[in-house]
Amino acid sequence: MPELRRDPITHRWSIIATERALRPKDFRRAHAPTGGKVDPFAAGNEHLTPPEIAAIRPETGTANDPTWRARVVPNKFPALRIEGGLDKRADGIFDRMNGVGAHEVIIESPDADFELHRLPHDHLVEVLELYRDRMADLQGDARFEFALLFRNHGAEAGASIAHGHAQLIALPVVPHHVQELLDGAKRYFAFRERNVFDDIVRQEVDDGRRLVHDNGDFVVLAPYASRLPFELWIVPRFQATRFECATHDQLDNLAESLRFALDRLDRGLGDPAYNFIIQSAPYGHDDVPWYRWHIQIMPKLTEVAGFEWGTGFYINPTAPEEAAEFLRSLPA
Amino acid sequence: MPELRRDPITHRWSIIATERALRPKDFRRAHAPTGGKVDPFAAGNEHLTPPEIAAIRPETGTANDPTWRARVVPNKFPALRIEGGLDKRADGIFDRMNGVGAHEVIIESPDADFELHRLPHDHLVEVLELYRDRMADLQGDARFEFALLFRNHGAEAGASIAHGHAQLIALPVVPHHVQELLDGAKRYFAFRERNVFDDIVRQEVDDGRRLVHDNGDFVVLAPYASRLPFELWIVPRFQATRFECATHDQLDNLAESLRFALDRLDRGLGDPAYNFIIQSAPYGHDDVPWYRWHIQIMPKLTEVAGFEWGTGFYINPTAPEEAAEFLRSLPA
Repeated sequence: MPELRRDPITHRWSIIATERALRPKDFRRAHAPTGGKVDPFAAGNEHLTPPEIAAIRPETGTANDPTWRARVVPNKFPALRIEGGLDKRADGIFDRMNGVGAHEVIIESPDADFELHRLPHDHLVEVLELYRDRMADLQGDARFEFALLFRNHGAEAGASIAHGHAQLIALPVVPHHVQELLDGAKRYFAFRERNVFDDIVRQEVDDGRRLVHDNGDFVVLAPYASRLPFELWIVPRFQATRFECATHDQLDNLAESLRFALDRLDRGLGDPAYNFIIQSAPYGHDDVPWYRWHIQIMPKLTEVAGFEWGTGFYINPTAPEEAAEFLRSLPA
Repeated sequence: MPELRRDPITHRWSIIATERALRPKDFRRAHAPTGGKVDPFAAGNEHLTPPEIAAIRPETGTANDPTWRARVVPNKFPALRIEGGLDKRADGIFDRMNGVGAHEVIIESPDADFELHRLPHDHLVEVLELYRDRMADLQGDARFEFALLFRNHGAEAGASIAHGHAQLIALPVVPHHVQELLDGAKRYFAFRERNVFDDIVRQEVDDGRRLVHDNGDFVVLAPYASRLPFELWIVPRFQATRFECATHDQLDNLAESLRFALDRLDRGLGDPAYNFIIQSAPYGHDDVPWYRWHIQIMPKLTEVAGFEWGTGFYINPTAPEEAAEFLRSLPA
C-alpha cells in the first residue's frame, strides 16, 4: 500500500509509491525506467491495461474494443490506491496516512505517434471534455479533496511511456502548493478588491510584450515572473473557479488556445519535452470571485538545480518578453 | 541588469538572469548549453575567470597564480549583479527589484576530473572551511539577507561546466522556502518544546531503518518523507543555527560524513548526478533554539513532472528505508 508521509518541518507531503517501487538496481544504469517495445496504449492492445473507466468511441462499439478515439484507464502502477480508508496515524514523531487516491490515465488517441496539438479540432474538444468529465466524476468520492489533471510529454518531462497520455490524480488532502495559490489570490482580492487573474489579463493585453495569443475567451501569455524559459499560462478571460464546470463552447475555444501554445512551442523549439497542468480549485470549493482555473505549461529546457531546491527561487535565463516575442513571430 | 520579479499570486520570486541570457535558438538543438573544450577552472587557466576572491594555496604563492588547491571567483555569468541598489518598484500590478546579489564559484580542486568525496581528508576539510568563510564574509554586506551554498554535480543536475565546483549566491530577500523551514521548525518547537532536528536525529538513531551513518557529531539519514529516491540529509547532533559558525573540529567530522554519503551514492548508483545544498539560517538570524543548519543531498535519478509542478507533492518510487538499507550494506 502506498503511503502519504508528511515532512515534520514544512508539513509538505510525499507519496512513497510502493506499487511502482524502484529498487537500487533500477537506477544503476539508466536514469529513468523505460517501457518495453510493446505499446500498451495502442488500439488492439486494450488487454494490456486495466479495464477502461470511460472512452470516446462510435455508438456501435463496446467497452474495451479497439474502436475508441480516446480512452481512460486506471494507472497500472498507481501512485495511490483507490481502495480503503486513510488510517491517519503517527509513526513516532512523524505523520502518515494510507496512500488512498485515484490515478487514471487518459489516452487521447490510439495512434502511437500522435501529438495533442495535431489532433483534429473536434477530437481535441472531445478530449478536453473527457478531461473535464473525469475531474467532475471523481468529485463524487467524498474521500477526495483535490484533483490534478496533468500531462508529461517526453522522457525528460517524466513520461515513462512514449505513447502520449494525460494523467489524473485525486488526493485526500489539498496540497500545500494549491492552498498557497488560493490564499494568494484571496489576499490580492482582499487588498485590491479585484480578481488577480482579471488584473493579469488586463495588463498583459494592454501591454502586449508578454502576450502570445488572445482569442477573446482565453489568453496565452508568458507570465511576468516566469520560472522557466518559455513557461506559458492559458488564462480564461471570464470568471470560472473550477475547470470541471467548463462548457462545451468554452472548451471549444480552449482547444484553439492550447493548440496555438503547443504548436508554437513545438515548431519554435523543436518539440521540447513539457509538463502541463490544469490548476483548478479544490473539490467542494465554492465558486469564489478571487480564484480562476488556468493552465500552466512548463517546457523542460533547463534543469532544476541546487539553487531552486534550496530557495524555491527560479533562475530563468530567458526573459518572458523575449519568449513571447519569439513565439508570436513564428509563421502561422 | 538581472531582475527579481515577484509572482503576484504566490509572492514567489524569480530571477530573470539577463547576463546569462539564453535565446530561443540556444534551445533548438541541445536542451542545455554546454561549455567549450577548454576547462576554465583548470590550473593555468586562471585568466579565463574573473580575478579570484579567495583561495587556498601555499604561502609562497600569489593571487591568481596556478599554485592553488581551492579557489573562489565571481561567476562570469552571474545570476545576480553585485553592484547597485535594489530599486524596488511596481511594473503595473507587478513587483520587481534589481537583481542585486553575490554569485561566486568555489572550485575545490585544480584537477579537471576530481570528485569531491575523493579529495584527501585535509583538503576536504579546507574546502568546507572555505565554504564557511565565504558564507561568513558575505554577511558583511548589509544588502544581503540570505546566502545559499550549493553544488550541482553532473549535467542532469544543472552543472554547465564539467569541472567540479560549488556555488554561493547571496540574496537581498529571505526566500519563501527558507521562511517556511524556519516557521515550521518554530511551530514544532512551540508545540512540543523540543527542537525538531533533535527529535528527528533521536528517532532515526533509535529506529535505525533510515539511518545511513552516524559518526557521533553528524548523522546521515534518508528522511522519513523523502521527496526523491536516495534523498539524504546530513544533520548535526549538536545545536547550531548557522553554518558560518561551524568550528574546525565540526567541519573535520562533517568532511567524514559528507564523504561517506557521496561515496556511497557514487558506488551504489554509478556516480549519479546530484545537487547538494547547505540549508543555513538567514543572515542576522539569532542563534535560535528551534532551527539547525543541515545539508540536503538530492540525487537526480527521476524527473520532476507535472504532478510535482501542480501540487508541490513528490511521488517517490523508492522508500527511504530501502535506500538507507542499500547504502548501509555496501562494502566499506
